[in-house]
Amino acid sequence: MQIIRDIATLRRHVKQARESGKTVGFVPTMGYLHPGHLSLLHKAREKNDLIILSIFVNPLQFGAGEDYEEYPRDLEADAAQAKEAGCDLIFAPTVKEMYPQGYATFVDVERLTDSLCGASRPGHFRGVTTVVTKLFNIVTPDRAYFGQKDAQQALVLRKMARDLNMDLQVLIMPTIREKDGLAMSSRNTYLSPEERTQATVLSRSLFQAEEKIKNGERDTNKITEFITQTIQSEPLANIDYVAIVDTDEIKPTETINGQTLIALAVRFGKTRLIDNIIVEVS
Amino acid sequence: MQIIRDIATLRRHVKQARESGKTVGFVPTMGYLHPGHLSLLHKAREKNDLIILSIFVNPLQFGAGEDYEEYPRDLEADAAQAKEAGCDLIFAPTVKEMYPQGYATFVDVERLTDSLCGASRPGHFRGVTTVVTKLFNIVTPDRAYFGQKDAQQALVLRKMARDLNMDLQVLIMPTIREKDGLAMSSRNTYLSPEERTQATVLSRSLFQAEEKIKNGERDTNKITEFITQTIQSEPLANIDYVAIVDTDEIKPTETINGQTLIALAVRFGKTRLIDNIIVEVS
Repeated sequence: MQIIRDIATLRRHVKQARESGKTVGFVPTMGYLHPGHLSLLHKAREKNDLIILSIFVNPLQFGAGEDYEEYPRDLEADAAQAKEAGCDLIFAPTVKEMYPQGYATFVDVERLTDSLCGASRPGHFRGVTTVVTKLFNIVTPDRAYFGQKDAQQALVLRKMARDLNMDLQVLIMPTIREKDGLAMSSRNTYLSPEERTQATVLSRSLFQAEEKIKNGERDTNKITEFITQTIQSEPLANIDYVAIVDTDEIKPTETINGQTLIALAVRFGKTRLIDNIIVEVS
Repeated sequence: MQIIRDIATLRRHVKQARESGKTVGFVPTMGYLHPGHLSLLHKAREKNDLIILSIFVNPLQFGAGEDYEEYPRDLEADAAQAKEAGCDLIFAPTVKEMYPQGYATFVDVERLTDSLCGASRPGHFRGVTTVVTKLFNIVTPDRAYFGQKDAQQALVLRKMARDLNMDLQVLIMPTIREKDGLAMSSRNTYLSPEERTQATVLSRSLFQAEEKIKNGERDTNKITEFITQTIQSEPLANIDYVAIVDTDEIKPTETINGQTLIALAVRFGKTRLIDNIIVEVS
């Protein structure tokens, strides 16, 4: 498995594969791989001939004061894990390769990026949609795989790909969790032991909410209130948002109806964690 | 030559061509073809196997109160001329096909779109860059051809394609002019006979400025002043802007140095005309 640093070399590899009729599966990441990422590689391996993983900590999607500098990086460990998971090529460009001097072009998905993480992290989704557009143009995948853990990101990218007529499928794969329910995230490494223990409240509150919905609850205010109170029972938890929205427009809904995203962001100390579930009620 | 209305059919044609190893040349237009457009088709014909012309009056690039409704349209005449010029396929989608309900994604090139036509027509270039991104993703050309008459548009699109790593060449072709020097434009049909006569002052002022530069003039203030006065000698001319900028960043320059764009926009009654020259001084 090769690690490629520059765009021209990656393009050559992809063109060669295309010329021999191969399909391309793509998993874009910021690296520091965990089993969530690896599950995306496994999924890509099932359906595509050439599997490309990108590792790029994208400065454009971090706000001022966020953790761009501290974001964990370990290319060597990532490469070993990716190879084991069936990855063929790692694309790990430098910042300069992606954003040369004088860079000026940006992609925005409106409305869907106004709420949830878009409200807490202004400019974040512009960074995501811009870098993923670039990566899609470089890698030209048939299928791109994203984790549901970053649900808003995945829904925004699916919308972007449709709106801009990108000729590929955006696939959203289930969140992979620790045994105690905590959603896998590279940022979990920031947590102190005490924060780590209390952080299980996130998935617990979501699963309990799901149970309530299964038992007939449809009032989103009541569900939001329940999740909020459950999380606030942990003294180190600091809620950023708890939101219930539809999966098309990411707009708040008053009652649970159709495909609905229940998403939350909570800070433990300096660490901001997100989690969500998607429920379907007909 | 076929006229295709929907994206899926166009994609099928392109894929078929690609599979037999053909290259694709693309000329995006708003239709109402004139010899300027046809020169782009001829140029495309020289280097590519499959020539696609798009005709789409893009509502997104027209501001409120601009001429979206009145913009001239004549698909039948366009098809005849395009066929004659060697075009293989016309892609003429509906507005609904390009911007279905709920459309939300936009592409922006910053800085280069702040001045000249970008200042006079807020949102115009966002409309252009968004629709051209979509068209590029649908047509997947090897080479796309634009006229220098819309110089800022062409420079912005070239920048966009580079920044977003679109795997194609943006080629900028010389402006085609009437015998008396007026740059060909679909909007010339709006002009009254008197306006049409006076409109020759645009190219005349640019050519005279070019002559001054050849004779050693380097002061952009003096050249701007000369062009302005020349145009103001025509009573029906109403200057929107006269600007001298570099072709990379489209930023005003104090002296002519390197590749420089001299661009202007002038109203005759309700009709807004643009013209420009590019000079190279080392």
